[in-house]
Amino acid sequence: MLKKLIGVGLVSTALVLSACGNEEVEPDKDVQTVSAEEATVEVIPAHKDLNQEPVPLEINREGSDVFVRMTSQITDIEIDKDNNYKAWTFNGEAPGPVVVVEEGDTIHFTLDNMDPSIPHSMDFHAVHAAPDKAFADVAPNEEGTFVYKASSPGVFMYHCGTDPVLSHIANGMHGVIIVTPQDGYPTDDEVDREFVIVQNEWYKYNDLNDMTNEEPSQVVFSAKALHEGQVNTNGTVGALIDEPLEAKVGEKIRFYINNVGPNEVSSFHVIGTVFDDVYIDGHPANHMEGMQTVGLPASGGAVVEFTVKEAGTYKFVTHQFNHVQKGAAGKLVVTE
Amino acid sequence: MLKKLIGVGLVSTALVLSACGNEEVEPDKDVQTVSAEEATVEVIPAHKDLNQEPVPLEINREGSDVFVRMTSQITDIEIDKDNNYKAWTFNGEAPGPVVVVEEGDTIHFTLDNMDPSIPHSMDFHAVHAAPDKAFADVAPNEEGTFVYKASSPGVFMYHCGTDPVLSHIANGMHGVIIVTPQDGYPTDDEVDREFVIVQNEWYKYNDLNDMTNEEPSQVVFSAKALHEGQVNTNGTVGALIDEPLEAKVGEKIRFYINNVGPNEVSSFHVIGTVFDDVYIDGHPANHMEGMQTVGLPASGGAVVEFTVKEAGTYKFVTHQFNHVQKGAAGKLVVTE
Amino acid sequence: MLKKLIGVGLVSTALVLSACGNEEVEPDKDVQTVSAEEATVEVIPAHKDLNQEPVPLEINREGSDVFVRMTSQITDIEIDKDNNYKAWTFNGEAPGPVVVVEEGDTIHFTLDNMDPSIPHSMDFHAVHAAPDKAFADVAPNEEGTFVYKASSPGVFMYHCGTDPVLSHIANGMHGVIIVTPQDGYPTDDEVDREFVIVQNEWYKYNDLNDMTNEEPSQVVFSAKALHEGQVNTNGTVGALIDEPLEAKVGEKIRFYINNVGPNEVSSFHVIGTVFDDVYIDGHPANHMEGMQTVGLPASGGAVVEFTVKEAGTYKFVTHQFNHVQKGAAGKLVVTE
Repeated sequence: MLKKLIGVGLVSTALVLSACGNEEVEPDKDVQTVSAEEATVEVIPAHKDLNQEPVPLEINREGSDVFVRMTSQITDIEIDKDNNYKAWTFNGEAPGPVVVVEEGDTIHFTLDNMDPSIPHSMDFHAVHAAPDKAFADVAPNEEGTFVYKASSPGVFMYHCGTDPVLSHIANGMHGVIIVTPQDGYPTDDEVDREFVIVQNEWYKYNDLNDMTNEEPSQVVFSAKALHEGQVNTNGTVGALIDEPLEAKVGEKIRFYINNVGPNEVSSFHVIGTVFDDVYIDGHPANHMEGMQTVGLPASGGAVVEFTVKEAGTYKFVTHQFNHVQKGAAGKLVVTE
Repeated sequence: MLKKLIGVGLVSTALVLSACGNEEVEPDKDVQTVSAEEATVEVIPAHKDLNQEPVPLEINREGSDVFVRMTSQITDIEIDKDNNYKAWTFNGEAPGPVVVVEEGDTIHFTLDNMDPSIPHSMDFHAVHAAPDKAFADVAPNEEGTFVYKASSPGVFMYHCGTDPVLSHIANGMHGVIIVTPQDGYPTDDEVDREFVIVQNEWYKYNDLNDMTNEEPSQVVFSAKALHEGQVNTNGTVGALIDEPLEAKVGEKIRFYINNVGPNEVSSFHVIGTVFDDVYIDGHPANHMEGMQTVGLPASGGAVVEFTVKEAGTYKFVTHQFNHVQKGAAGKLVVTE
Repeated sequence: MLKKLIGVGLVSTALVLSACGNEEVEPDKDVQTVSAEEATVEVIPAHKDLNQEPVPLEINREGSDVFVRMTSQITDIEIDKDNNYKAWTFNGEAPGPVVVVEEGDTIHFTLDNMDPSIPHSMDFHAVHAAPDKAFADVAPNEEGTFVYKASSPGVFMYHCGTDPVLSHIANGMHGVIIVTPQDGYPTDDEVDREFVIVQNEWYKYNDLNDMTNEEPSQVVFSAKALHEGQVNTNGTVGALIDEPLEAKVGEKIRFYINNVGPNEVSSFHVIGTVFDDVYIDGHPANHMEGMQTVGLPASGGAVVEFTVKEAGTYKFVTHQFNHVQKGAAGKLVVTE
């Protein structure tokens, strides 16, 4: 199904952050995220007055060679109403833009590190590569280029791998790379509509002690565009958008999901439906059926497919409901 | 195997709460549940002197139409020795009574909300239905009727879906609905005896802050009757019963399990045996073999089957042993 | 593959604790383990001046009868730089030595309890046995012998099952028993090199309250020898060894992994690769492919196989990165 949608030069730029479009859940007053201003950890001086304009992902194909260009940059992300987090990001989004390649592609990846003060790097879970070389640090204001094969299909996490990795992921440097299977999924022909959904946690601003020892301040979902101009994405990047996903009665929906953590596992569930088909970590061989809830380890992915049989509003959650209290609920609105 | 036991008009009324029949585990003195009297959150005024008599589940079949009538009601549940929790329940039990239907059935469900002050609702994980309509709130002292298909087999969680959902689940409104597969499980002919086991957590009484941000006070198992008059159930509802499950040497045992949370995952294990057969979420297609421990996400279910080869006492636990300290251990006594 | 390496009388004695060979990860200053001296719980008087010399595992085969002799003993384990834990151990190691038997073997197991003051026992997840008899307590300074069949293949946890079990596991009494499948794994012929990797947590010394209610002080990996003289093991037992595992470019590596807890789940991942083949709980029937991360419940095991295509350093972690901050990272160095 996906292979029909994407083509050479596919770009994935738009963002729908549906995490907080969930007005029925009453947030607990005690679980407010500490914003940058109130943080116990000071903003890095070089980041203080920095809010770098999001730079679109560049992705171009020549045969099976795919050229991907991304930035690491410091950009304010509205993670809750009037709550900006001075995030460390890929391309000014958190989660970063979705990268889609095909099984067997060779990825020519360039990281343009626009951060004036800290090195960053890229760890794609989708590839086989010696991490100390292929995922090496890129110094501030420099560029690094790396080449690797995407030989295994799936819904993979990517993240900054620079130490301390926990800080880089928790500050916003995470996203999803999808490697579409050469022979597709057995259910490709049945699927009508597809979305990419990412779960992540936020902690106190750049506070490694809080990230290591405390519960998350927020747990949220983001819906990301698979391709330019996708319905349900409005092109606004890095902003909190209170806009549900949309579908029609009778459609079979596919979610590409990944729980990027950094610390928590997920119990992914869509209220009002059962997953007809599930591919664990997004590999066609790992097919399961009729699941109510898919357990995702930290950095675990899946393809989940379900049919919406009646008009109405379907929420998706992690069924760890303390995390729903902290924001982990999105919405799919189904109309006739 | 189950299909041989159940029939039209099956009711599932009895309860064995084996959670605390585990006298060898020394409870930590610091993990005592706060009872209603000591709670930091006051009992809702309308609930204060309320302890509604458990109302038996009604379930009647006409062809493939199954008529299920349940109540939401306020009933004291003894969750620990001399520790009564003024629970929000289905039918005066927590977990609620087990509902068993067959794949392909149409469920005609009526919720009689006996709670004088709070709306409640029903979210069956077993069905396809628009949640905002089919799982809608039923006002205090009113009834609501909803119709849905049970088209996918499995061991599903049900729970109150009224906001804040965390409060409703954690206060006791959870249970299991089993949809038996049309073609049965491949191992049906091997199974001699079967039980329903539910894992849940308790928190400080109706304290949403504690439920959201703190560790559970107790983690417990309940064994529920599959059908009226089942061995190992004594018909007492809503009471703490220090009575083990029973089986005979050489029998193959089937547990229908579900971890209703609301927050924690489970690592389900039976000491002294290996699961010969496991069906993840209870779907016949998701067959695994030879497992020591089954990971259950929050709201995840499974069918697990094992053979007891020697006379003796077999405990079942979540192998997250901090939760065993808080009560999560049950017992199966096997005799010649 | 394993069946080719092991033979009659195989012993598994050596230990590589690679947990802290991870100098790039900056440990958080606040997560220092409390050593015995600083502990809030006093060392048991009879253990105070006790540091029993590790006793090698004895394992001898006669046909399909395997005679295993292990000790329970009190031995100092260096769990962090200059941080000795007066551990309750099997054979003076924590995790204990790896036991390898074949599917269908009868295990004749003797536990020599060298602890002068506390009873101990053995709970092998690999066997079918009545726990109250076959896993019974052995009194201080006594021996107990038990016989059981290993009828199901896999990567199983073993642990002391004496109450409170949480104390016995968390104080060090855990390890892995591998039951090799009679017909092998489908990928046996592809595998070039194999290791046993164990994840466990440490808490404040013998502090049941801390173990029950608090986060772990440390989360670590140990690499254990499968057979005497294995490359990458140096024979030093019970000491912290800052030495990576080793492999060659192009090799397919097999890890036998188990997360012995006692409390946490694991999200096992090797940076820079994808698991080509995974066998959940180590059973050949539970085959999955192309996984980035394997979720392990507490006491859950797996066989994971991956190919290292380039020279360099590959770290393995639980992708729950708060646990990496607490030590959970090991290293595989791949050379031409």
